[in-house]
Amino acid sequence: MADPRFFTRKGPFSLGFIAQRIGATLSLPASESLLIADVATLDRAQPGEISVYSDPRYREAAGCSRASAIITSPAFAEQTPSATTMLLLKDPRLGYALVGALFYPTELLDAGIDPGARIDPSAMIGPDTQIDAGAVIGPKAEIGARCHISANAVIGRGVVIGDDSRIGANSVISHALIGARVDIASCVSIGVQGFGFVPGPQGLVRMQQLGRVIIEDGVEIGANSAIDRGATDDTVIGAGTVIDNLVQIGHNVVIGRHCVLSGQAGVAGSSTIGDGVMVGGGTSISDHLVIGAGARIAGKSGVARDVEPGQAVGGYPAVPIRQWHRQTSALTKMSQRSGES
Amino acid sequence: MADPRFFTRKGPFSLGFIAQRIGATLSLPASESLLIADVATLDRAQPGEISVYSDPRYREAAGCSRASAIITSPAFAEQTPSATTMLLLKDPRLGYALVGALFYPTELLDAGIDPGARIDPSAMIGPDTQIDAGAVIGPKAEIGARCHISANAVIGRGVVIGDDSRIGANSVISHALIGARVDIASCVSIGVQGFGFVPGPQGLVRMQQLGRVIIEDGVEIGANSAIDRGATDDTVIGAGTVIDNLVQIGHNVVIGRHCVLSGQAGVAGSSTIGDGVMVGGGTSISDHLVIGAGARIAGKSGVARDVEPGQAVGGYPAVPIRQWHRQTSALTKMSQRSGES
Amino acid sequence: MADPRFFTRKGPFSLGFIAQRIGATLSLPASESLLIADVATLDRAQPGEISVYSDPRYREAAGCSRASAIITSPAFAEQTPSATTMLLLKDPRLGYALVGALFYPTELLDAGIDPGARIDPSAMIGPDTQIDAGAVIGPKAEIGARCHISANAVIGRGVVIGDDSRIGANSVISHALIGARVDIASCVSIGVQGFGFVPGPQGLVRMQQLGRVIIEDGVEIGANSAIDRGATDDTVIGAGTVIDNLVQIGHNVVIGRHCVLSGQAGVAGSSTIGDGVMVGGGTSISDHLVIGAGARIAGKSGVARDVEPGQAVGGYPAVPIRQWHRQTSALTKMSQRSGES
Repeated sequence: MADPRFFTRKGPFSLGFIAQRIGATLSLPASESLLIADVATLDRAQPGEISVYSDPRYREAAGCSRASAIITSPAFAEQTPSATTMLLLKDPRLGYALVGALFYPTELLDAGIDPGARIDPSAMIGPDTQIDAGAVIGPKAEIGARCHISANAVIGRGVVIGDDSRIGANSVISHALIGARVDIASCVSIGVQGFGFVPGPQGLVRMQQLGRVIIEDGVEIGANSAIDRGATDDTVIGAGTVIDNLVQIGHNVVIGRHCVLSGQAGVAGSSTIGDGVMVGGGTSISDHLVIGAGARIAGKSGVARDVEPGQAVGGYPAVPIRQWHRQTSALTKMSQRSGES
Repeated sequence: MADPRFFTRKGPFSLGFIAQRIGATLSLPASESLLIADVATLDRAQPGEISVYSDPRYREAAGCSRASAIITSPAFAEQTPSATTMLLLKDPRLGYALVGALFYPTELLDAGIDPGARIDPSAMIGPDTQIDAGAVIGPKAEIGARCHISANAVIGRGVVIGDDSRIGANSVISHALIGARVDIASCVSIGVQGFGFVPGPQGLVRMQQLGRVIIEDGVEIGANSAIDRGATDDTVIGAGTVIDNLVQIGHNVVIGRHCVLSGQAGVAGSSTIGDGVMVGGGTSISDHLVIGAGARIAGKSGVARDVEPGQAVGGYPAVPIRQWHRQTSALTKMSQRSGES
Repeated sequence: MADPRFFTRKGPFSLGFIAQRIGATLSLPASESLLIADVATLDRAQPGEISVYSDPRYREAAGCSRASAIITSPAFAEQTPSATTMLLLKDPRLGYALVGALFYPTELLDAGIDPGARIDPSAMIGPDTQIDAGAVIGPKAEIGARCHISANAVIGRGVVIGDDSRIGANSVISHALIGARVDIASCVSIGVQGFGFVPGPQGLVRMQQLGRVIIEDGVEIGANSAIDRGATDDTVIGAGTVIDNLVQIGHNVVIGRHCVLSGQAGVAGSSTIGDGVMVGGGTSISDHLVIGAGARIAGKSGVARDVEPGQAVGGYPAVPIRQWHRQTSALTKMSQRSGES
């Protein structure tokens, strides 16, 4: 089970309740009243716990798991010689994610404003919101209902945060309009001025950055990431997009909905990323590019040209993924010949 | 106009005042008393607003802009069939930057020390400086005049900060001497110990890091960046240099004046970078290298050798930029042949 | 000498004491009562100071150094025509590191809890621990003896920190068990939820992250780095491992003992790194890989496959280091031919 020092477990829940909740069918309907106390991996699960089997590599582990119930798909269930109750549904991993959230809900708010928080009198705080010690909320900021502003977070003047959003400890938000159900981790900087300068006679002259950051509903942003506000237009992160740790988003970047940007990725100023784009870890995208919807960019790539919708690219500079693999393969052969001679 | 929740606009100003301020000539001298209320892009500007036209790609937008005045160069003005008043000067973008700062000055200080700040009694704070809630100023620190130490920033023992400098929220400064007009964004770490270890019989032994960080006048440092203090000598950032978000500067690095380091760049320990060097985003520079003045390093490069003054390099490992382009082109051809066979 | 605004020097110490402390032999036994006041580089050292000579490139500097004593190896001492007292031992750099720590001990704690810190009544704080203003310690956290929790650091519910550990200013620790003598710099995020999602009908669904971060004894973690907690199992950093600034460690990653991860390196989820592995700066390691003990990975590499124990690799994608050098060399030749034609 998850370490009780860090996680509060709910339940137990009956198998019937769980199956209904995730839209699964029970392989043994008689077991619907069986009580389940926890989630666990196949090899660690004990009687009374539920696990998931969604990858044929774990077929053996599924066969000898001590779990009282296993979430899986009908196809896998047939191949698995197990007396365990199966919860059958099309997408077992999705079902397992939902069951995980049932036993371990994201956060149990302890609503109220800590006396050690500093809230400007003109700020508006929604009901049932938790604000921790050391948090600083600026003038005319508007925080929604059921939010959690963690310790030492700093919310600047005029920032708007929608309902059910969470701002991690020591994060700094300014010049931003943030939607509902947004989850921002710790030590994140949002709304900082973008990197815009003009050469002048005595050196670089800063171009004032007069835009905002718009973060739509359901976005997640990982620890220690930074998002610049727009220079004139806004920087936008579309609904449902998830951003990992240590990611850099430049000014005026517009990212679509349901994108995935992995750790240490970076997007330079004014680039546009369509819906559903996947960006691998450590990948850099140059400025003023257009990345089409559904594009997939391999990890550690350096993208210097536009990418067509749906295209998979990789490499430095990034090219279509099959071309990159051919390049890599040709280079290997060439270096082998070179090594022989 | 910029969102008034986040930006305070000055003005209006007369065209004559603006032209004088940026050293421009009015194409229609009669319009010098015309009042201008805001800056805006060509396509968004309304009557009473001023815009800029400095790129031939926007010629059409300049022709049909509703702006009451456009900052541009004499050459562009001739090509643009517009009845709008032009403010003519050699470098329109520089002029526009100055006008932007006129309408939206960087910051309006609210001088004073918040009662929620913690200032050591031996620290010295200059006049008209603003220190926000939760800021912690250590013993014998010296903060200049008209500075802004933002919420929850931590300024360590003995740190010196010159006049008109700004330290962003949740940033941490130690072992550093910082000049005037320095702008440090949020969640920045300056003065941390460098990465120096010696193998010992029971594992790595830390080499004490006894140097400082010297940040000269007018430097800007982006959010979530980290600058190590020197091991024996100092780490130095030269006057007027600008550093973007999530940049890593190792111990003993010496960076010249008026350099530009874009997002997620990294410079390993003891490397020296001359004046006016441009480092692209995501580029890594190895340790103990010398990068000559005026060098330009393409984004995402991995620099493993010294770079001559004025040289442009790119690639991994970085080579002269034309060689890198030839390599990329040759690799493409080779992979095409390979794909055909 | 190190700037006294930032460093407190101990001593003086006699040469005899120093030699005994680091296990060195004095070349001139009669000088054992000579008092030494400071450490310094060969070219900067003054009479009364001690330096180190461990690299033949500095032979001339060693010969004309004004230092009263030089730590070096017997082989170097013979080649150096100097009347200075030599402290002879096998590994002079290790000796110098130990002498540096003698004159400048890591930190002089000012034990006690600042009234501006917020300690939950259920937290346990060990003796002689220093907790600075603005630090927030959550319920049931356990902090050991002689620790330093710096200003505005946030220690979450249930976190355990061993004796003699230091948490830098504005760092955030949650869901973590931390050993003794661990040194965590500023603006570090430890224990944040990993980047785990499952596609659902309305977008990505978060997979609850129910593991912890285990940091063993003697680990160092650089500024602005981020370490995710495990998804089901734990994320583990082995004893004596050192991690530089701006490094990303994904969920379920297991790193062995005495590893070195340089600045801006990243390790994606569920990869395993053996003991004594060296990872260069800016290198990305993909998810679910196994990096064998003693492997060495060149800076800026993109590792997409397992690496054998003891193997040296580099490149993007990373290959054995000699193959990478051959590739680079072949590519250079090819681009030269291409440039000629």
